[in-house]
Amino acid sequence: MSAPCIIALDAMGGDFGPEVVVPGAAISAVRHPGISFLMFGDEARINPQLEKHAALNGRVEVIHTAHVIGMDAKPSQAIRRGKGSSMWLAIEAVREGRAAVAVSAGNTGAFMALYRLLLKPLGNIERPAIAAIWPTVRAESIVLDVGANIGATSKQLCDFALMGAAMARVLFHLERPKVGLLNVGVEEIKGAEEVKEAHLWLKETEGLSIDYVGFVEGDDIGQGKVDVIVVEGFAGNIALKTAEGTARQIGTWVREAMMGSMISKIGAVLAQGGFRALKRKMDPRRVNGGTFLGHNGLAIKSHGGTDALGFASAVDLGYDMAAHGLVARLAADLAAFHGKLDADKNKADAASAAAPQSAAGGA
Amino acid sequence: MSAPCIIALDAMGGDFGPEVVVPGAAISAVRHPGISFLMFGDEARINPQLEKHAALNGRVEVIHTAHVIGMDAKPSQAIRRGKGSSMWLAIEAVREGRAAVAVSAGNTGAFMALYRLLLKPLGNIERPAIAAIWPTVRAESIVLDVGANIGATSKQLCDFALMGAAMARVLFHLERPKVGLLNVGVEEIKGAEEVKEAHLWLKETEGLSIDYVGFVEGDDIGQGKVDVIVVEGFAGNIALKTAEGTARQIGTWVREAMMGSMISKIGAVLAQGGFRALKRKMDPRRVNGGTFLGHNGLAIKSHGGTDALGFASAVDLGYDMAAHGLVARLAADLAAFHGKLDADKNKADAASAAAPQSAAGGA
Repeated sequence: MSAPCIIALDAMGGDFGPEVVVPGAAISAVRHPGISFLMFGDEARINPQLEKHAALNGRVEVIHTAHVIGMDAKPSQAIRRGKGSSMWLAIEAVREGRAAVAVSAGNTGAFMALYRLLLKPLGNIERPAIAAIWPTVRAESIVLDVGANIGATSKQLCDFALMGAAMARVLFHLERPKVGLLNVGVEEIKGAEEVKEAHLWLKETEGLSIDYVGFVEGDDIGQGKVDVIVVEGFAGNIALKTAEGTARQIGTWVREAMMGSMISKIGAVLAQGGFRALKRKMDPRRVNGGTFLGHNGLAIKSHGGTDALGFASAVDLGYDMAAHGLVARLAADLAAFHGKLDADKNKADAASAAAPQSAAGGA
Repeated sequence: MSAPCIIALDAMGGDFGPEVVVPGAAISAVRHPGISFLMFGDEARINPQLEKHAALNGRVEVIHTAHVIGMDAKPSQAIRRGKGSSMWLAIEAVREGRAAVAVSAGNTGAFMALYRLLLKPLGNIERPAIAAIWPTVRAESIVLDVGANIGATSKQLCDFALMGAAMARVLFHLERPKVGLLNVGVEEIKGAEEVKEAHLWLKETEGLSIDYVGFVEGDDIGQGKVDVIVVEGFAGNIALKTAEGTARQIGTWVREAMMGSMISKIGAVLAQGGFRALKRKMDPRRVNGGTFLGHNGLAIKSHGGTDALGFASAVDLGYDMAAHGLVARLAADLAAFHGKLDADKNKADAASAAAPQSAAGGA
């Protein structure tokens, strides 16, 4: 079973453009017979690629544009001069309901800027987030924000928690995903007041349809202790890249260790089935794709340097979330939460209006 | 050659107290004939351990105290009620010049609080930092702050850069260590103004005896791109723990992969020499020890749950830095830098006093 789903592709994004985007789309098309594509970009480069991939026959509409946002363009330039570009048109297709999700391997800053410009925020979301899928020893978790913003208020962290939980429900088919707030375990640390405040809200607000487990630390992520890890974007981005770097580093060490002696080399050849399984698990292409959350439409950012297999993962991710109605779930969850926040605030306001002395004169 | 060096040990710290601290000290004593110890704690538990380790004969003075700061004590409690405890006395020994460095596997928050209370800040350092040694594919790097504070101003980040560089000079014997500021690579991100400001200072201030290379990202750490990585403590702590967690996760995957089939198992047995080398490289005990930097004395925090081998690494680290005069180097570097900052500020003040219109009326 494969629900019909139209995906808008920025065919020019990334280090390679159509030479990776089209073959990537073809891989996804084989996996999901319900998918079809709108491809925005230079038809002179797209069409020759399409001819090579029979899986895409009759499933692609090419919309030509020669305008491309460069990988080094600033977000402000994308906003001022990006109109009509392949990236802009892909998001516009989502806004106009012609596509369920936009996927780009282009400039992250520009893509996020256009996502915010062209799509309306859900409810009273102040900031979008980028969510990453994080492979763990148990399965996979969702970590957000991994770089849409630097810093986050307590309300924004709560929004991230709910958005991540909605994504986990869609992607992992969990009714009440486990959610943790990333924090440092060192008791003496003052500050991170916004993290503590978010902690209290998530702990005390009822009916959120999440299983809030409290604080988690950096080493809990890879153990799969929770389904959703919430953190502001600076630390989140650093955590994600540090994990990627550590995986690469250990990969180097494993190879070096196996080349250390002839007998180790022979052992490694015999164990190559195991090493292949390991390599698959550690393959960053398997979980490629940052999901933009918070505005009224779906957008997936693929790594710029990935190959067709990696790009297909980003397309698959977009398909999964579109097919399961992520945006509608997000909107419902956020509306419920913001309603509760407002009710709490009204209650507090009413209480302080009824007893104006107690706040000033209390202990 | 082994310079004489007296090390003050909080014998009661950590999950195991003297049962790990004393054997750990013995391992270090064998490696460094110049080391002797002051051991603070319960002599009824310390002495039986000493009897088991001939390497410590005549090299240990036990100073009895029954007062111990618990692993769950708050920093404020350590300050109010910690006087006379094993941890307090160890730092006091450093302050009074009876020991060159204090090592504890106890409560990090309490240890940092007492370090700040009992030792004077160097120059006009506003905040201390905790520096970690980070194994990389090239060698080792220093990452700081990994959790003394949350957040850091641009000046504090510059202080961290100089303190980390002084530590790299001592530990890695480099004249001009490469220093990088940890940042997120995503262009669109606004904020982190303090990181950008620190970047400008480090780039433009001359004569700092560091090779400042600019921004680095999380995945550069494990590649050993620079010798010193500077970051505020929240993101630094999360990066460190995330890397530890990722290493553990991949260790699990490697074992699973090798158990996947009989032939892989046989291969793994043949390759066991390689796997042992790998395990050594990934052994967290090898680089155990967070160095407290910024106050007028040396203190090393060992992991609370480590064993004797891990505790010995922390002692070795303290020995290396004491023997090479880290604190004197730190003091000199910071004095030079703060002198430059003051000079710059005076110059700027003089310029704005001489031309009061230009600031208000300029472009």
